[in-house]
Amino acid sequence: MLNNTLFFKTQDLQNISAYANRMNDELKSGDIGYYHLVNTSFELISQSKEFIKNKTHIKSIVLVGMGGSSCGVKALKELLFDHEEEKELFIIDNTSSHTFTNIMKKLDIKKTLFIIASKSGTTIEVISLFKLIIAYFNLEHKNLSENFVFITDLNSKLHKLGDELNIKCFFIPQNVGGRFSVLSAIGIVPLTFCNYDTKALLEGARACFVDFFEKKETHILQKAYHYCTHKNAHINVLFSYGDAFKAFNEWYVQLIAESLGKKQGFKRIGLTPIALIGARDQHSFLQLIMDGPKDKTITFLKIKDSKKSPNIPNISLNHLQSCDFTNDINLHDLLNAQCDATAQALISENLSVDIIELEKLDAWHCGYLMYYYELFTSACGIMLGINTYDQPGVEVGKLILKNMLSK
Amino acid sequence: MLNNTLFFKTQDLQNISAYANRMNDELKSGDIGYYHLVNTSFELISQSKEFIKNKTHIKSIVLVGMGGSSCGVKALKELLFDHEEEKELFIIDNTSSHTFTNIMKKLDIKKTLFIIASKSGTTIEVISLFKLIIAYFNLEHKNLSENFVFITDLNSKLHKLGDELNIKCFFIPQNVGGRFSVLSAIGIVPLTFCNYDTKALLEGARACFVDFFEKKETHILQKAYHYCTHKNAHINVLFSYGDAFKAFNEWYVQLIAESLGKKQGFKRIGLTPIALIGARDQHSFLQLIMDGPKDKTITFLKIKDSKKSPNIPNISLNHLQSCDFTNDINLHDLLNAQCDATAQALISENLSVDIIELEKLDAWHCGYLMYYYELFTSACGIMLGINTYDQPGVEVGKLILKNMLSK
Repeated sequence: MLNNTLFFKTQDLQNISAYANRMNDELKSGDIGYYHLVNTSFELISQSKEFIKNKTHIKSIVLVGMGGSSCGVKALKELLFDHEEEKELFIIDNTSSHTFTNIMKKLDIKKTLFIIASKSGTTIEVISLFKLIIAYFNLEHKNLSENFVFITDLNSKLHKLGDELNIKCFFIPQNVGGRFSVLSAIGIVPLTFCNYDTKALLEGARACFVDFFEKKETHILQKAYHYCTHKNAHINVLFSYGDAFKAFNEWYVQLIAESLGKKQGFKRIGLTPIALIGARDQHSFLQLIMDGPKDKTITFLKIKDSKKSPNIPNISLNHLQSCDFTNDINLHDLLNAQCDATAQALISENLSVDIIELEKLDAWHCGYLMYYYELFTSACGIMLGINTYDQPGVEVGKLILKNMLSK
Repeated sequence: MLNNTLFFKTQDLQNISAYANRMNDELKSGDIGYYHLVNTSFELISQSKEFIKNKTHIKSIVLVGMGGSSCGVKALKELLFDHEEEKELFIIDNTSSHTFTNIMKKLDIKKTLFIIASKSGTTIEVISLFKLIIAYFNLEHKNLSENFVFITDLNSKLHKLGDELNIKCFFIPQNVGGRFSVLSAIGIVPLTFCNYDTKALLEGARACFVDFFEKKETHILQKAYHYCTHKNAHINVLFSYGDAFKAFNEWYVQLIAESLGKKQGFKRIGLTPIALIGARDQHSFLQLIMDGPKDKTITFLKIKDSKKSPNIPNISLNHLQSCDFTNDINLHDLLNAQCDATAQALISENLSVDIIELEKLDAWHCGYLMYYYELFTSACGIMLGINTYDQPGVEVGKLILKNMLSK
């Protein structure tokens, strides 16, 4: 399970119930697609399995996608590091030359399936990378269906190209935004291809859905309300304990920043996400949180299960006996104790702290955690009175780029 | 060379010359050690080469260090990705179990040299990891000198243990703080062991020293002044274009956050660093910068040289002709155009923008860039009127941890 403890003043139920109703309205309207993926995406698992089952020669799956089309998949790949892959999953999420070349060098084209993922179908980076792959392996257009799959919106230009070239297309529901799409085809298809437990992933997310909409648990709303009404703290730090959270942190930053930074008439509204890795960043960012301006809330994220972690041996080194207090302690328990100690230090400075503890790190808990943050983001958007699901601000730069290069 | 263009209003020279004088005073006082590493660290190169030259059996170098004792080395390893290593460099910078176990599994103890790096000599994570390594390979105390080197302060407890066990120790000058230590033994020793061009690294840093202190270039001071006197923008975004900057970004965050977040009597002072990767994060954080509160300055960081990057082929795909404007463009030039287009978009919103362009990505330019940011941090500290070089805020959590685990 996911256990979320809030170390700040919560509201009476009536203060936040209006927002719960608004979220129910959003859910029932059917306009916001991601809410429903916890029910509708299960059929994608069988479709993906059906497509991949005879392709035993494929040993590498390469997902090419920007932002929401790769971020969540990368997060899950790194969180589920224990997964033993029959097919290795690679992700290309940037126009960075050496990453592109490094990945290409590792691939045998006869054993590789590329997934070109673009919701709009015309993401310039993705289409450029698609062309680079075609040229790198000197592929013929008529044979592209052997090495490519598309994930895009129904009737997008990419879909139309796919139809012409007989390339298998999977679809993202039109009303599911990129950064809310990890439980759509974007996540389910590549992860199922690589034999991740996508069923447990969706079940975990559905458990979070049930806890929120049916069991009416309120901690997500309480936390959102606290963040959105806080006078001074508009920076929200996620302090995740363990290296496996690095890509999850990036997913969190994308979800919050792109959803909650919006113009509203002449007003500029936004919460600023920052994501850290513990214990490492206790030696980095922590000093600023402790002694700098009180403009930050802090969420600690940790995993309870320490079964696979080694014990620090009971060795006493000459001169270093002052360090013996960690002897005989499990390394993961030390990490969690560092998390608790840091949280206590921040609480004693009267900062707004909460702790999320996952029972263990598996697909089910990852699904729960990601859905938790999606619901949290929707709740914040409603409380801030903005459109959570668009991203009008990024269009200017795209136009400038096009003008610049078309000259 | 490094070219820094400021797209905001700069000051008359007399407004900032007082700060230049203060930095000169700091330099001449001799109290702040990092200023002098560009002269004193060269001899570490020959000492490191001397130590490693007969150890041809060593194929893996493992640096164990937290915060300043690993951050900069990791940054340089990733920036200099083209480097062909005779000895592979691994870095353990966290108490995260699966990273620890994964690295251990890859090592052959007969071919491995561990560097235990702790300025204080008693960093609890580092000493705990040291013990875990001893136990993992079942090593005997009397033989540790075959597999270990220490980097620490002279006369620290770790140094004393090293002396007893006949373990080679390299020293960090007492007046060089952890986060300013990348050009001390912390960086020079492991990188020289692995045959990186540490001479060019120091020469690049020295070129920056000369440009600032001798040629009196002012852009660092101008930028620091703008940041420190800005009414609303206390968040400083570094938008680095290229995947190679990921660990450099973390180094930047550590340097700024830990140096510039300080209490001063009852006041809490601080600049908040955020670091992004372009073009990837144009699909993530950019929306918040464009449309959210104007509380951010933005530095773009890019590399001019595109020689090793492939061209996007001149392929026109049916239905996707609107994406043909990147055809025949070098992939790295596309990345840089995305950088310029995004900068233009932000400038048009009247945000404070500057662009750092490196001629190319080699050890010399990395040295210049890191020293640039160290000088910038010192300048900000002087302008904010704080002690840039301590970190009193992190001690509380350490005490709580010790009490928690000693029970």
